[in-house]
Amino acid sequence: MGHPGCYIEELEVGASVSGTRVVTESDIVQFAAVSGDANPLHLDEEFARRSRFGGRIAHGMLTASFISALLANELPGPGSTYLSQTLKFKAPVRIGDRVRIEVTVTSVHPRRRLVQLQTRARVGDAIVIDGEAMALVPSRTASARG
Amino acid sequence: MGHPGCYIEELEVGASVSGTRVVTESDIVQFAAVSGDANPLHLDEEFARRSRFGGRIAHGMLTASFISALLANELPGPGSTYLSQTLKFKAPVRIGDRVRIEVTVTSVHPRRRLVQLQTRARVGDAIVIDGEAMALVPSRTASARG
Repeated sequence: MGHPGCYIEELEVGASVSGTRVVTESDIVQFAAVSGDANPLHLDEEFARRSRFGGRIAHGMLTASFISALLANELPGPGSTYLSQTLKFKAPVRIGDRVRIEVTVTSVHPRRRLVQLQTRARVGDAIVIDGEAMALVPSRTASARG
Repeated sequence: MGHPGCYIEELEVGASVSGTRVVTESDIVQFAAVSGDANPLHLDEEFARRSRFGGRIAHGMLTASFISALLANELPGPGSTYLSQTLKFKAPVRIGDRVRIEVTVTSVHPRRRLVQLQTRARVGDAIVIDGEAMALVPSRTASARG
């Protein structure tokens, strides 16, 4: 059945994981195709250079998808159900940027099997996306539901 | 410079746009690759059939990317800056589902050039994602900043 991810009984406030991704031009081209957002700010260097960003930027939701992947893969991991996500897009991400995703448990509600997580994406010291997520997590005592 | 999208002076509470996308297996495979979320719930029918969902489901953030695309393409459109998004994942989306994205202006703050939008994704009558977005929108009187 694959890796079960975390059980609610294992989760503690302060637990955290992180991962990094270098954003490539190919990522942006692929994300434009699958999302349907082919705006020249993402795809056309000439256009983007004349914009207020001074060059091509990644779709905000592309960086958000890296957050979603870390939640799904590691904390709370496979078997959890993604209930909600807030995203504040604070700064642009550019081709070649190394994005660090950080996910930290901020509260655990065992009876409701809910975990709240702080979710951040950084480039260097700058927070590029700030937000929080809620997920439903399997319980050891009801693992068949996971 | 491409289509300028909406100016803040043009936006009125209640203005709305919608669009539809049929989710394909190819969308899910591409989104798994670009996000890094290759969980079997999305990719492995055999595994997903034994899960509580009874079959493969789309990544929540894939459907969210359709919301982001409608904001970027139409309302408030090119030239706007995506500031924030909230997402409540209320029901799964499956391969073949026709997802309808609806974006509606809920408030306009001309001096700060801010617009707030209700953002929804539906499959049939069911809301699969509910949430809201904030965007910064160019002003006619400061269009060079767009």
